[in-house]
Amino acid sequence: MSEKPRLLGNRIVAQSRLFRIEAVELEFANGNRVEYERLVGSGRGAVLIVPLLNPQTVLLIREYAAGSDRHELGLPKGKIEAEEDILEAANREIKEEIGYGSRSLKRLTELSIAPGYMSHRTHIVLAEDLYPERWPGDEPEEIEVVPWPLNAIDTLVARDDFTEARSLAALYLVREHLSRKPS
Amino acid sequence: MSEKPRLLGNRIVAQSRLFRIEAVELEFANGNRVEYERLVGSGRGAVLIVPLLNPQTVLLIREYAAGSDRHELGLPKGKIEAEEDILEAANREIKEEIGYGSRSLKRLTELSIAPGYMSHRTHIVLAEDLYPERWPGDEPEEIEVVPWPLNAIDTLVARDDFTEARSLAALYLVREHLSRKPS
Repeated sequence: MSEKPRLLGNRIVAQSRLFRIEAVELEFANGNRVEYERLVGSGRGAVLIVPLLNPQTVLLIREYAAGSDRHELGLPKGKIEAEEDILEAANREIKEEIGYGSRSLKRLTELSIAPGYMSHRTHIVLAEDLYPERWPGDEPEEIEVVPWPLNAIDTLVARDDFTEARSLAALYLVREHLSRKPS
Repeated sequence: MSEKPRLLGNRIVAQSRLFRIEAVELEFANGNRVEYERLVGSGRGAVLIVPLLNPQTVLLIREYAAGSDRHELGLPKGKIEAEEDILEAANREIKEEIGYGSRSLKRLTELSIAPGYMSHRTHIVLAEDLYPERWPGDEPEEIEVVPWPLNAIDTLVARDDFTEARSLAALYLVREHLSRKPS
């Protein structure tokens, strides 16, 4: 197991309303010194939810994504707010984004998106036993809800508006999870 | 299909050596106006490679990740350099990071990591028919190469040093791809 590099110094080099960029100077065990830049996250992390309408059907959403500047298909997700735990955040997000709550929420794992330069963490939550409940969200336009067969992940991958690595990994994880569950 | 919002204005609000943050003002079809911030990428994108030593064994790497501040297990990856195509970049990265070249490279798909605020795109490349060839990389310490059975993705997920969504999605994609291939 490799030894962690020693932190020689750090400073904020750029900052905006949403982002904070930190430069860190590190010394590796072999004496090499390197300066890295990284995005500093909010700390509480995010949730990404796999809402199952029934064991064969997942509810995807289609919404505008400013980074790629187009509408993207993916799973509902959002930041964990102060005083919320992981499952509360997951249930709030699906009420806001797909109009369902869940009576059965299960945290499957935690994923990172670019650990080389982001501390960002996302908890993957499986939501089953759904019931209709809509909470107002803060989206600028109505989110489209798209039911999708869980056994048709390959046709999703073939579309060019479904690209998000976390959403894809989460769908595979849930399919694995369900296949191991005694029915 | 939803209409794309209209761009009312954009400006760079923060910048560092590696990152550039842009604020964009958008007007949605329903008249709502929103300001978003997004990270502006390099444009050429990145490659993430799934190198198979044999049909049952993938070569993972373990290296220090500055964002999460610890050593992470994952797949080799890197930026596409100027004048490189996708497969050339993939072959260079595995020569630098795992000490193998590939005689059979195949681009499977393209993934995003956070399309809501990043334009970043990663091409997923399957590398088979490997042969030993080591090129010098720019890593501050030696990268550890970790052979892993492709049928043991669940034990990888259970580890807390394997978290990267793109690496996980890519392993599942390759397993699917191989299962469809006539043997």
